[in-house]
Amino acid sequence: MTGEVAVALDVGGTGMKCALVDTDGVVRHAERHPTDTGRGPDAVVETILTVAEGLAGKARADGLTPIALGIVVPGVVDEARGVAVWSANVGFRDVPLRDLASARLGLPTALGHDVRAGGLAEARLGAGRATGHVLFVAIGTGIAAAHVVAGSAATGAHGAAGELGHILIRPDGPVCGCGRSGCLEALASASAVARRYAELTTAVTDAEPAAGVTTAPDGGSAAGPGPGRTMVTAAQVAARAAAGEEVATRVWREAVEALADGLATAQALFDVATIVLGGGLAQAGAGLFDPLRAALRDRLTFHREPQLVPAVLGDEAGCLGAALLALDQLETP
Amino acid sequence: MTGEVAVALDVGGTGMKCALVDTDGVVRHAERHPTDTGRGPDAVVETILTVAEGLAGKARADGLTPIALGIVVPGVVDEARGVAVWSANVGFRDVPLRDLASARLGLPTALGHDVRAGGLAEARLGAGRATGHVLFVAIGTGIAAAHVVAGSAATGAHGAAGELGHILIRPDGPVCGCGRSGCLEALASASAVARRYAELTTAVTDAEPAAGVTTAPDGGSAAGPGPGRTMVTAAQVAARAAAGEEVATRVWREAVEALADGLATAQALFDVATIVLGGGLAQAGAGLFDPLRAALRDRLTFHREPQLVPAVLGDEAGCLGAALLALDQLETP
Repeated sequence: MTGEVAVALDVGGTGMKCALVDTDGVVRHAERHPTDTGRGPDAVVETILTVAEGLAGKARADGLTPIALGIVVPGVVDEARGVAVWSANVGFRDVPLRDLASARLGLPTALGHDVRAGGLAEARLGAGRATGHVLFVAIGTGIAAAHVVAGSAATGAHGAAGELGHILIRPDGPVCGCGRSGCLEALASASAVARRYAELTTAVTDAEPAAGVTTAPDGGSAAGPGPGRTMVTAAQVAARAAAGEEVATRVWREAVEALADGLATAQALFDVATIVLGGGLAQAGAGLFDPLRAALRDRLTFHREPQLVPAVLGDEAGCLGAALLALDQLETP
Repeated sequence: MTGEVAVALDVGGTGMKCALVDTDGVVRHAERHPTDTGRGPDAVVETILTVAEGLAGKARADGLTPIALGIVVPGVVDEARGVAVWSANVGFRDVPLRDLASARLGLPTALGHDVRAGGLAEARLGAGRATGHVLFVAIGTGIAAAHVVAGSAATGAHGAAGELGHILIRPDGPVCGCGRSGCLEALASASAVARRYAELTTAVTDAEPAAGVTTAPDGGSAAGPGPGRTMVTAAQVAARAAAGEEVATRVWREAVEALADGLATAQALFDVATIVLGGGLAQAGAGLFDPLRAALRDRLTFHREPQLVPAVLGDEAGCLGAALLALDQLETP
């Protein structure tokens, strides 16, 4: 073990997860800060740079040597140019964050995408370790994926690869935040499950149209209960389904089937060895994994069945992935 | 230009396209042979080896030096192990073709997948040249794709990546040869278009159930007209649609819409710069590309629109790709 560390920041719409991570992938120090996006993008950038400087200083004070900086953000991220193209959650639009940060800190800096970085960490340090082809799927208020082959996450030509939440699953399905109908995210995200359950349990007494989803492609969501509704969370729907409640059972089954359709499509295109499920919904455990494995098996014909496993790094995955991106760039000339 | 050439064979269910290709990608000699699969897999393997030997001999007789051998076959191909895992069209099941060929010819040998090799050739020598992220989609009796990034085609963990024909598009759609319902291939392949047109034009006088598609995942198809039907080809349907015939217009529009749904899903996951369409259906020209571009644009929300272009290498693409695989392996230690 050396004293060299990467400074790593995972910037989300609500908070920033920050760490000093050594070259063995061990977290030597961690801290969290609010993002406070209401102040506007310039102020958020300034906070990111100040927090990163503070972490580098903390490293030196602890006798460690910061050798690289990694920052990950949601949305569309052009990793090659180091630009946060569009992060609705954080309020970024074409922010050249990599160059701003490397100028401020004087460290080689990598900018990445939060879900792709999380997938990278799960594939190299977490649940996908030791398998060369991994699909990481984060299911929370939105759904997004990262395809990791040989320890590298696919970015796409414009930094927008892996949008599993926005593939068509039900042509006659509910409207998605992206504007189309029947996207996977509108059927199987945690917010979709909660919304569908609310619709079905209040339909008799509440004739109002369902609250629109305003999920951004980067996973932000403003779906809420309509007037007079009490929102039941997706986790609660899962628990009620497990307890045999009829409406919850139906809502959960429909979400699992939509998710299985989405994963079957991904497997047909990517042919991975392991699918790692992360995000809030994946915490439903056997209540999700058992029926989902069965439904996925039903849908695979000539394809090999991938392992379907829960993520193990929790909400630190993105930050660990930021550290991996920071260290990786040192190896590329 | 050197005198060094790759010996390249693209083995299909009907014929083999063979060539000597130099290190600049120029075809120095080409020949074709029947595959004659009815003789069984052992005889087909023997023919492949004999033809390859003949090509190497031809090269030497012409003053050229064969330095590598590339063979591509349809189906599921494990490129890392050099095994034709399953090629229904050719009758192969777990044939270690790479080692058999390198033992016979004494040349470093690469075994690849026909569509992935075709995609590789289109991406590096053809319609996708100069763009780093390409999706090649072959639409004939079946539908398959190859995702090529930085000049390398994704194989997947088990040699089965790129099965765009077998993603779910219409949950209530027709049964596909793979056993599921509503696959893209059952809706938008050349055989699907021909079958649908036959169904609609003979429905009044023919009460028999539609002939089942028996398309294998490698694109083979045995769909034919039912009793008393005259099969109109997909190209003829396209021509009749262009001439304004009502049923043909409807069939063509439905196929284009299904194809646009499939390409939109692929773009959400891969985020490519260029989609190259090849295979028989792509020869419909503007009659396909104009409505397909419009339908794809309708479906993309926050994603960048890829270029949608026709393949340019024709049926030589697979053979050229076999040559590229043969030459590429010489550069990898």
